[in-house]
Amino acid sequence: MLTRLDISLNMNNKNTYDANMGSILHGFLMENISKEFSKEMHRNQLHSYSQYIIKYGEQLIWTINTLDSDAKNEIITGICTLDSVSLKHREENIIIEKKEIKSITYDQLFEKFYIKRQAKSIKFKFITPTSFKCKGEYMIYPTVRLIFQSLMNKFNDFSKDIGVSCDEFLPLLEEVLILKNYNLRSNTFSLEGIRVPSFCGELEYFINAPQHIINMVHMLAEFGTYSGVGIKTSMGMGGIKVTH
Amino acid sequence: MLTRLDISLNMNNKNTYDANMGSILHGFLMENISKEFSKEMHRNQLHSYSQYIIKYGEQLIWTINTLDSDAKNEIITGICTLDSVSLKHREENIIIEKKEIKSITYDQLFEKFYIKRQAKSIKFKFITPTSFKCKGEYMIYPTVRLIFQSLMNKFNDFSKDIGVSCDEFLPLLEEVLILKNYNLRSNTFSLEGIRVPSFCGELEYFINAPQHIINMVHMLAEFGTYSGVGIKTSMGMGGIKVTH
Repeated sequence: MLTRLDISLNMNNKNTYDANMGSILHGFLMENISKEFSKEMHRNQLHSYSQYIIKYGEQLIWTINTLDSDAKNEIITGICTLDSVSLKHREENIIIEKKEIKSITYDQLFEKFYIKRQAKSIKFKFITPTSFKCKGEYMIYPTVRLIFQSLMNKFNDFSKDIGVSCDEFLPLLEEVLILKNYNLRSNTFSLEGIRVPSFCGELEYFINAPQHIINMVHMLAEFGTYSGVGIKTSMGMGGIKVTH
Repeated sequence: MLTRLDISLNMNNKNTYDANMGSILHGFLMENISKEFSKEMHRNQLHSYSQYIIKYGEQLIWTINTLDSDAKNEIITGICTLDSVSLKHREENIIIEKKEIKSITYDQLFEKFYIKRQAKSIKFKFITPTSFKCKGEYMIYPTVRLIFQSLMNKFNDFSKDIGVSCDEFLPLLEEVLILKNYNLRSNTFSLEGIRVPSFCGELEYFINAPQHIINMVHMLAEFGTYSGVGIKTSMGMGGIKVTH
């Protein structure tokens, strides 16, 4: 099951809140889960959640996504009971104004996006700083390969009954996804005193492929709105929105 | 010899002038060269010039570059005698306010940029809509291969004594040019009623290579400020500026 919790936070009349708060909020999240679950995630080397914070005008929205039921029960259920977020290092307490939660099973995702006919174009919006790693180097331009390799790997880790073969589909997607529009720029993400090279912005692909491939692209992209894309998606990086 | 003529035009208090005027100015240029030279260029399939127009705030600058002495004599010398640019189709006459001309020989380019030690980073600014063609498709994101293949091909067409091998250097440059910063967006260029898919913006590379490769990158880039990069550089596309 995939679950998204959107939390509206009170800005405290401060303009210093932005996507770079992600790692501080990650710290808060870790304080609010059981030690056992934290250890288990560490043991599995699997991040069954992603989270990021973003400012929309006067609104500050913290989004927490979980990729299976265990993570939902351990992370989201606990956070849902809170009225505020206390950031110890900053000695700040941020009031929670509203919470919105929605869930979708992997079967429903499959039915809604893979079985039903999808559009021949798709738009990705990288709403928090996003980055990939390849051969030890940060990659700050989103190629088809980097985006979909990341999505497929994350998808295959969590969808139990359905798998997508990277070897088979990545070369195909590189051929059939045609970049139609984009507006992208590099930036950095603050992480424990380091500035991670990254980018933000949006791009649109035309998908010149048979319908089942078009549908797969849309399904993986929708999954990506929960998993995030690229590196450090548990720290606030790689948050995406998709227009189908 | 490489020559650049920068012409400041009077805006006529109009805001409709922009980079898309390139093809109209190309028409004006063709009216002002000899038929023989025009035929010769057509026969050779070689564009020994590039031109583009760009608005800097309240200033409108038309830039004409020539890549050899013949083109300088045939194109720039003639234009230099004019006081205005008359656009017949638009029934407009644009006053020339200022002209600036500068020339550099290929030997001087080689000495200044290949012999002298250059910096480990370089910035490209794509100031008019730029596009590449690959296997019949427009390519609207500037990869290392697309940029330098275009520059090397144009350079090899005109530099008589010095040549750069694409087969040897393109794979090397793909490895050593590391994208550090960018801000790029897609757009279109109006050409005879067609909207050509293109992009504008800037990018910065770090060059992780021995000094002679660094120098070659700078030399090709400087040449590119005369030749333009990509397709339709005689029509107003692919104008670049370089920060060494």
